[in-house]
Amino acid sequence: MAEKPSIPKGTRDFSPLEMSRRNFIFDQIKEVFRTCGYQAIETPAMENLSTLMGKYGEEGDKLLFKVLNSGDFKGKLSEEAWDLPPGKLAPLLSEKGLRYDLTVPFARYVVQHRNDISFPFKRYQIQPVWRADRPQRGRYREFYQCDADVVGSDSLLNEYELIQIIADVFRRLNLKTVVKLNNRKILAGIAETVGAGTQMTDITVAMDKLDKIGLDKVMEELEEKGLSAASREALKPVLEMQGGSEEKLAFLEAFLGSSPQGKLGLEEVRTVMELTGQDTPGCRLEFDLTLARGLNYYTGSIIEVKSAEVEIGSICGGGRYDNLTGIFGLEGVSGVGISFGADRIYDVLLQLDRFPDQELTGTRVLFANFGEKEVLGVLATAKQLREKGVAVEVYPDAAKIKKQLAYANARSIPYVVMAGAEELARGVYTLKDMAAGGQETLTPDAMLKFLCPVD
Amino acid sequence: MAEKPSIPKGTRDFSPLEMSRRNFIFDQIKEVFRTCGYQAIETPAMENLSTLMGKYGEEGDKLLFKVLNSGDFKGKLSEEAWDLPPGKLAPLLSEKGLRYDLTVPFARYVVQHRNDISFPFKRYQIQPVWRADRPQRGRYREFYQCDADVVGSDSLLNEYELIQIIADVFRRLNLKTVVKLNNRKILAGIAETVGAGTQMTDITVAMDKLDKIGLDKVMEELEEKGLSAASREALKPVLEMQGGSEEKLAFLEAFLGSSPQGKLGLEEVRTVMELTGQDTPGCRLEFDLTLARGLNYYTGSIIEVKSAEVEIGSICGGGRYDNLTGIFGLEGVSGVGISFGADRIYDVLLQLDRFPDQELTGTRVLFANFGEKEVLGVLATAKQLREKGVAVEVYPDAAKIKKQLAYANARSIPYVVMAGAEELARGVYTLKDMAAGGQETLTPDAMLKFLCPVD
Repeated sequence: MAEKPSIPKGTRDFSPLEMSRRNFIFDQIKEVFRTCGYQAIETPAMENLSTLMGKYGEEGDKLLFKVLNSGDFKGKLSEEAWDLPPGKLAPLLSEKGLRYDLTVPFARYVVQHRNDISFPFKRYQIQPVWRADRPQRGRYREFYQCDADVVGSDSLLNEYELIQIIADVFRRLNLKTVVKLNNRKILAGIAETVGAGTQMTDITVAMDKLDKIGLDKVMEELEEKGLSAASREALKPVLEMQGGSEEKLAFLEAFLGSSPQGKLGLEEVRTVMELTGQDTPGCRLEFDLTLARGLNYYTGSIIEVKSAEVEIGSICGGGRYDNLTGIFGLEGVSGVGISFGADRIYDVLLQLDRFPDQELTGTRVLFANFGEKEVLGVLATAKQLREKGVAVEVYPDAAKIKKQLAYANARSIPYVVMAGAEELARGVYTLKDMAAGGQETLTPDAMLKFLCPVD
Repeated sequence: MAEKPSIPKGTRDFSPLEMSRRNFIFDQIKEVFRTCGYQAIETPAMENLSTLMGKYGEEGDKLLFKVLNSGDFKGKLSEEAWDLPPGKLAPLLSEKGLRYDLTVPFARYVVQHRNDISFPFKRYQIQPVWRADRPQRGRYREFYQCDADVVGSDSLLNEYELIQIIADVFRRLNLKTVVKLNNRKILAGIAETVGAGTQMTDITVAMDKLDKIGLDKVMEELEEKGLSAASREALKPVLEMQGGSEEKLAFLEAFLGSSPQGKLGLEEVRTVMELTGQDTPGCRLEFDLTLARGLNYYTGSIIEVKSAEVEIGSICGGGRYDNLTGIFGLEGVSGVGISFGADRIYDVLLQLDRFPDQELTGTRVLFANFGEKEVLGVLATAKQLREKGVAVEVYPDAAKIKKQLAYANARSIPYVVMAGAEELARGVYTLKDMAAGGQETLTPDAMLKFLCPVD
């Protein structure tokens, strides 16, 4: 036999069970997006490299999957071409790349179709993305992103709505979460206040390690990064700040007294927290100053969601970016968005055993096949059940009944209908309950009633 | 401003309206697949080139999109490498390709996971595929395929079921169709009977042109292809055959008297037609000897579906292949499957104006925003409606009401709730009917009842 076929490393096949679980997650997310008026779009898997390059930093450019131009390279490229620097050689080999995320294609979409869009534009997009990352546990080269964004509105009602969406999705998924909120303007205000306005990122990155490495090590790191002794001393009270969200906000209110943008950031966080209120059961909202995701593009709110039950990275995150479409020449369109991490949510649900019973989506009844003639007697009933929405299979071959029952078991089909010559002669069906093991003889009508009771 | 961004030729963005229409099609197909016990799987967009190459003929190999290996080519490839023949050079540049169809990845999946699969395995798969075809009207480089296949069963009940699926899908889509049925064994039997057993394909291809170019030209073409005068003469009665499915089958019954495989093919067609019976309203089943799709891999039944209302190519097709997984070393697994052409179905529905009213899936109510304070008064009601499944938007900015109403119009939102200071003070809402133009003042309860009457 030939070598067993395989798939590229870092990619996955999804089996029927995995698909049904993943679709459960996607369906909850889609339904919440729908009720909040977000509209689905899709963009092509391939984008022009000019659209993608330079949008994800130098490292990101390297992680783009590039699609080879068609044709014969020997003919197209002179040998001298290979002496070109990689940046000049690459376009001769490839002009297209696979989507790296959903945000840049969305920005491209908004600019390209701006005349057909009614702003504020609330869109969602659930599609795979590809990254040539080194594959490792939980990190794949192809994975789905589920993004919702609003562009063309500055209002904090959008942040409120996105947090409602987060709360609603995780409530439907039966998962307890902590929603962490921060604001880039506060971080900038702190850097400004301690006299290190250009070192916001260094300060934030160091602050984020406070829990892990402690105050002294953070101070050392800040010194290494070149933060002056005065700035380090000024920053100390922030690092020593204690208490809940309310206490921290109050402390920063005083601390940021002379930084207008810091105050604005605080006000934004307060507004979002007040709008959200206590109205999000199962989902705790807290201010977290160390939250620093996407600092290179977020300009206002920063949002991150963690499981309150399982130790795992963030399962959803997002923020506000004031100039998303600027990279494609359309200035002044503010946006805010979130992205659900379907793979991590899948892992959390699996670990907590919270996926709903698969019986509900799989086949409910198998009609056993007792022979060419006998099986003809069940086709009309099978059809009736299907028309009522019941998932029904008719075993296609007149195999040994033992084999057919083994199939039903392997597929977790709860009921098997036995209709042999005797049943057909009497005009009845024998219904076998695969879990309980018992069986019952029923008229076709009684069986229909039993299998679709809502009817 | 920068140059307007664009997407690679032959690819498409899907707008919210297009998505909602496409999802309508996919949802009908999925629901029918589900009720018939077909299980969803997904395979990666990228497959190893060794999986894809040589499976689609020489032309197909050229149309594969290949993904560039990562890294620096200058370093990896010596200049001599470029003197290698294309077949030896290509692997140095690329080891992965984008999925060209869903059938080969499915065969690979079955072989790779055969120990986890309960046969007969009924799977469906709805995913995009990529082909480096020259883009033209109606032909894209990225398009979705919707495939259902059963592998591991020879029974013609599978053909029957797939035709039921076709009938059910198009009934749900409100489209009238003709389902054409043929069988490769009949075509082989005819070639055998006229003494030209090796020229089945030439005969079939010429027969297919009968309607267009007439008997004489077909005869000329067969002569050019080297069919002997005796064979051409023997074939003539088949080409002159008249009547409906029943007459044609009866004629061939006599004609193929001495060809066992020809008779077997006829028996298979008859069985499938008898099983299907008159039981498929809106979907006419007919025997069509000229049907020759997929001759290079189908070994039994051949199925093709045409619109009975619009002149367009086939909108669904399929057939039986006796050795799908043989290419990956697993012999003796027979399969039969169909594939719905979502793009063409979309075009037919659009042309006949049969898409359902979009109102049903879009936003139903927009709460206008009369100011920062006023809007707070509507958030709880908006949330209540969303919890009842109603799609609701709250306009995020306190823009001019004219602008907000224009947004509702552009988005085809049927109702706008006006809740200014006066309404808030009185504890009522003014509900504006955007189509009729009238408006009504309602208590919150009355409005909830009006907007979700099923509740």
